[in-house]
Amino acid sequence: MTVTPATGVDFDSPEHQERLADLYRDFDAVGMTPLWRTREGLMPFSPEPRAVPHLWRWTELHPLAARSADLVPVGRGGERRAIGLGNPGLPGDPYATPTLWAAIQYLAPRENAPEHRHSQSAFRFVLEGEGVWTVVDGDPVAMRRGDLLLTPGWRFHGHQNVSDAPMAWLDGLDIPFVATTDQGFFEFGPERVRDASTPDRSRGERLWAHPGLVPVSAAGQPQPSSPLMAYRWAHTDAALAAQLELADEGHPGVLGPGHAAVRFTNPTSGGDALTTMRTEMHRLRAGVRADRGRTTASSVWQVFDGTGTVVLNGAAHPLSHGDVFVAPSWTEVSLRADTDLDLFTFSDAPIVERLHLLRTAT
Amino acid sequence: MTVTPATGVDFDSPEHQERLADLYRDFDAVGMTPLWRTREGLMPFSPEPRAVPHLWRWTELHPLAARSADLVPVGRGGERRAIGLGNPGLPGDPYATPTLWAAIQYLAPRENAPEHRHSQSAFRFVLEGEGVWTVVDGDPVAMRRGDLLLTPGWRFHGHQNVSDAPMAWLDGLDIPFVATTDQGFFEFGPERVRDASTPDRSRGERLWAHPGLVPVSAAGQPQPSSPLMAYRWAHTDAALAAQLELADEGHPGVLGPGHAAVRFTNPTSGGDALTTMRTEMHRLRAGVRADRGRTTASSVWQVFDGTGTVVLNGAAHPLSHGDVFVAPSWTEVSLRADTDLDLFTFSDAPIVERLHLLRTAT
Amino acid sequence: MTVTPATGVDFDSPEHQERLADLYRDFDAVGMTPLWRTREGLMPFSPEPRAVPHLWRWTELHPLAARSADLVPVGRGGERRAIGLGNPGLPGDPYATPTLWAAIQYLAPRENAPEHRHSQSAFRFVLEGEGVWTVVDGDPVAMRRGDLLLTPGWRFHGHQNVSDAPMAWLDGLDIPFVATTDQGFFEFGPERVRDASTPDRSRGERLWAHPGLVPVSAAGQPQPSSPLMAYRWAHTDAALAAQLELADEGHPGVLGPGHAAVRFTNPTSGGDALTTMRTEMHRLRAGVRADRGRTTASSVWQVFDGTGTVVLNGAAHPLSHGDVFVAPSWTEVSLRADTDLDLFTFSDAPIVERLHLLRTAT
Amino acid sequence: MTVTPATGVDFDSPEHQERLADLYRDFDAVGMTPLWRTREGLMPFSPEPRAVPHLWRWTELHPLAARSADLVPVGRGGERRAIGLGNPGLPGDPYATPTLWAAIQYLAPRENAPEHRHSQSAFRFVLEGEGVWTVVDGDPVAMRRGDLLLTPGWRFHGHQNVSDAPMAWLDGLDIPFVATTDQGFFEFGPERVRDASTPDRSRGERLWAHPGLVPVSAAGQPQPSSPLMAYRWAHTDAALAAQLELADEGHPGVLGPGHAAVRFTNPTSGGDALTTMRTEMHRLRAGVRADRGRTTASSVWQVFDGTGTVVLNGAAHPLSHGDVFVAPSWTEVSLRADTDLDLFTFSDAPIVERLHLLRTAT
Repeated sequence: MTVTPATGVDFDSPEHQERLADLYRDFDAVGMTPLWRTREGLMPFSPEPRAVPHLWRWTELHPLAARSADLVPVGRGGERRAIGLGNPGLPGDPYATPTLWAAIQYLAPRENAPEHRHSQSAFRFVLEGEGVWTVVDGDPVAMRRGDLLLTPGWRFHGHQNVSDAPMAWLDGLDIPFVATTDQGFFEFGPERVRDASTPDRSRGERLWAHPGLVPVSAAGQPQPSSPLMAYRWAHTDAALAAQLELADEGHPGVLGPGHAAVRFTNPTSGGDALTTMRTEMHRLRAGVRADRGRTTASSVWQVFDGTGTVVLNGAAHPLSHGDVFVAPSWTEVSLRADTDLDLFTFSDAPIVERLHLLRTAT
Repeated sequence: MTVTPATGVDFDSPEHQERLADLYRDFDAVGMTPLWRTREGLMPFSPEPRAVPHLWRWTELHPLAARSADLVPVGRGGERRAIGLGNPGLPGDPYATPTLWAAIQYLAPRENAPEHRHSQSAFRFVLEGEGVWTVVDGDPVAMRRGDLLLTPGWRFHGHQNVSDAPMAWLDGLDIPFVATTDQGFFEFGPERVRDASTPDRSRGERLWAHPGLVPVSAAGQPQPSSPLMAYRWAHTDAALAAQLELADEGHPGVLGPGHAAVRFTNPTSGGDALTTMRTEMHRLRAGVRADRGRTTASSVWQVFDGTGTVVLNGAAHPLSHGDVFVAPSWTEVSLRADTDLDLFTFSDAPIVERLHLLRTAT
Repeated sequence: MTVTPATGVDFDSPEHQERLADLYRDFDAVGMTPLWRTREGLMPFSPEPRAVPHLWRWTELHPLAARSADLVPVGRGGERRAIGLGNPGLPGDPYATPTLWAAIQYLAPRENAPEHRHSQSAFRFVLEGEGVWTVVDGDPVAMRRGDLLLTPGWRFHGHQNVSDAPMAWLDGLDIPFVATTDQGFFEFGPERVRDASTPDRSRGERLWAHPGLVPVSAAGQPQPSSPLMAYRWAHTDAALAAQLELADEGHPGVLGPGHAAVRFTNPTSGGDALTTMRTEMHRLRAGVRADRGRTTASSVWQVFDGTGTVVLNGAAHPLSHGDVFVAPSWTEVSLRADTDLDLFTFSDAPIVERLHLLRTAT
Repeated sequence: MTVTPATGVDFDSPEHQERLADLYRDFDAVGMTPLWRTREGLMPFSPEPRAVPHLWRWTELHPLAARSADLVPVGRGGERRAIGLGNPGLPGDPYATPTLWAAIQYLAPRENAPEHRHSQSAFRFVLEGEGVWTVVDGDPVAMRRGDLLLTPGWRFHGHQNVSDAPMAWLDGLDIPFVATTDQGFFEFGPERVRDASTPDRSRGERLWAHPGLVPVSAAGQPQPSSPLMAYRWAHTDAALAAQLELADEGHPGVLGPGHAAVRFTNPTSGGDALTTMRTEMHRLRAGVRADRGRTTASSVWQVFDGTGTVVLNGAAHPLSHGDVFVAPSWTEVSLRADTDLDLFTFSDAPIVERLHLLRTAT
């Protein structure tokens, strides 16, 4: 028998249980839910994501994407031949994590993906290939191996493949976050990209891709996201190589021993290139093990080059070219490089960091 | 027959449909979802919240909360006699909106709600009554009619009712947002509040509740959330009254004709008092109509005093003392005051504003 | 003989000295100055201000100001009966420090000081008396004992004494800084204050002097300087008293043992109330000694109440009601309270802090 | 006879004048200065700088600097063979403007300028030549034609010329501002640069000179000044050329017709590279006229390449390679290019902008 001093009530009695059942029925009728019956689920001691750590093999993803090119055209309505990677822990929603969407996009030779714009922020990371231009607010941006291309929110963008080879890449968006918080707006643009030219460098790069140099016409006016739409592999590769060389010479710069990493940033503010997603490239030397610990940011990773292993909450997954894995909040992540290993990653860190919620543990 | 020039394929043919079905099966097997089959749902033209506009009557809520006091003790585990208001559009989750949790908390005479802390930010807004002290990181804060009391994230807090009358109030938290983004941490504190004294003013108020004055010992160090844990009704009332008087004298300050409003802010930064929730008090003079338009922030409102009507997406709901209504993202909100009408409101505006997603339309 | 290996030149030879003299003459002709002849003066090992620590007695200042009221009218052109306190180390310039101007302003019964505006920021601190209203951009602000009244840059302002008693107060401005950097603009306004009413509270106070409460119509828009033009003694006194009481009860808040201090801040940002000057009120309990160390900010202090001693670079000066002293950059300052001692102070800390030049030593 | 109604006093009477003279004598004795006798000088209607617009010819400056190399060694104490350009309007102080110091520094073959550090921020802009390395906190930075090299405050730095040719360059510092505000600290370092190696790229460039890429080890931590110590001519030239090409193609980016300009920024914040000085490179096409209007920032300009004319407050000065001119606050500046014209400029804009004092007029 449980009796509280305050009331003298016998909580185990059948009468009490019946009155309680009545109460809960009445709660239900007006949509009330007692915290005392749900507290643990609503407010866990530490994050208990429904999303699970998971890895997709490129050798599986790419052929499926290629098959769809034979069967499904790209056009107005569907908009993109993009296939989202759905976290097994989030059935029903094609979400990699509760905030992030990751997809393989595939454009067949000579195809055109029509222009549109949306509040969702997006980027493309190019694992391999070339021949596609993404046109962002009228500025054609070449897409080539190793490049990161941005489409910040509410910019018109379309893609065209001017080559005779198909091209596939990784799309990252904040679709789940924008969907959950009901912030989405969407608008169609022209059916074909508005500028079909194929310049080597975009206009944004010509204005902004000079280290530390900012046009005076735009200086002193921080923009929410980067005005630079393309981060080229040659620069990323050089920056990573330099960090490791500096470490060899005894100087700081690397993130850890044998572990170089660069973040893609907005030159007008020094902050993340996109408002809602952090994008980084990591390089581990052959033989290096990088224990990343835990963070409450959720992240998606893609192997750009090399082989190794990732251990997610204790479970090891071999890593090869193009493989994509996801680390939900508070997943313990450890990376091991068999060969030199380059990994691209994006996460929702800017969201939780700006709200002072981000926590890490090592 | 639909034939794309690019492939010459007849998409309507049975063979094609079969191959497509095969493809979708294979997609499913690895958790891939084509954007072209889900785009519209994932990326609507404008926000299409599952949450719906809804109003709960205080005359229903309060008796139910009171009944639970006879039947359910407050104690470790359940932690609080708080009953969440679940949006009818979000069945299964006791959430007012996808980001906000609103609950009626009820503390019987002489009861004590044990201490705990969590990453979720919280506040209490007191519709009526007094006699309860909430103890925040050891600082006892009296709760009285019209007061807004804060519990920023990760501060230990418990409540005790030292009076012979029960007390009920509105709890607001960012539980849904923290749950969705997997940012939750939780820790138990002492079973009884660590300081049982019942001072008239909290220590935080004694340090911080002086207009424009900041302790030099803490100056120049912006804090993420407010160090002031209590915003007293006397101040709020005076600020609202002054705005209306100034308008009568021909001076600016009101939000609209006959419509005064104050925001509760963090004196160390001038920003919102809490990191994830905006809190405001609005006053409409009798006869005034305030068309608030739409905003992508979702909000919850409680009538503090007076009567009137709220029109949510065209549906009118009468408003009386204590009634709670919710306006999901992009709901058209219009307020009408029959008598002088005071409304408390909170929203997720800081979340979407910091991420440059907030939009409004009038 | 000094011979440098590089040149083999004998620098001590008469020929060399002659050639050098020629060179220096030629330098002079085009306005060139060799760093090697001036480095030590231009770039000292630590600040070597020309300004010196100094104290003025109120018993001297006030009678002189009063005498001027009989002899000099207040009017257009001269604008103000304000008498600047010139640092003895800065002869020729009526500057308290290289950045700060401090003056006694005196308004005879029924006098009116005409309106003007200027880029210089200003404040008034009232040692004693009442009966004057300063009208800031049309908003009449009562001036009374212990109040701090602001006139941020480029706001029209005039003063009128509606009483039969004269009134004197301390004026603080950034005149020297604005003069040195050539940033000054000035404009005449009406000859008489544009609103001659004498309300108890200014409109700015009615909108902004509510702790933590901000009009929604102005929220989320940080302003460079405070929209609150008056910080009332009752609030300042209460805030200081509370800090000391909290310390007695074992809680933090004071700046040091027996030493309370508040900073006057801008409620829209939490930063300093004025862009170029920091303003604070300090209270030392009888018997307390506060070693303030050194700071590169220069400051001016006025005794509001009580007696004690200030030691400036080792030289002790007794302190009484109204006395004004100045501590140039890097002056060692130590305060000792005989009775309870209240001191108002202002400094150029915001200037050097924003430029990352501020240094302190204890 | 001037009689004020308030006092009935005849201000023109000999008695009155005598009493006034007495008062002013007594004011003087305690260092008091009446505002009414100085207002106009202290608070002009618009900036009235003592500094004057002025131009120095490189053909005069350079030979004088060269002569000093034969006569004066570089070494501890004098520290640098730097010759400051003194504004004719500021006799006695070797200052270009009240806030800026500009000097020609000259290093003979094989010479070494010893290491030191100071709170003053500094940069070097290289008009011509190469062969000198400046070593900043142990990082050797090559200096070559067209480069901008930084020495933010309190970094140890020395220079060594490893070549057989002398080298001259423009030094810019905030010496006057730091001197006036008494913020200067200075410390000697080793007599010879601590790292005598002569790498092509500094370590800072290897870490930071990648467009939009930031080492993750330093990301998310804005620094007051740029961690990038060298802005290379090749980048600056390419950025300027691209702006003009984009304009030819009909796209935005230039500052005005035929007028390209880049600002040197801090990649961790997007703000100015140095805390107290703005640095920019401007390029005018042959035939272009750029009316810059007035600004309250004072600036110094050096012709890097080409010929033209600058009109300063209406006075025209021909411009040739290396010429240096100064525009005090509120000087009207107009540039005209005869040939393509490249100009380097630095100003005190960050100082006055951060204090909300900056004004411009066109």
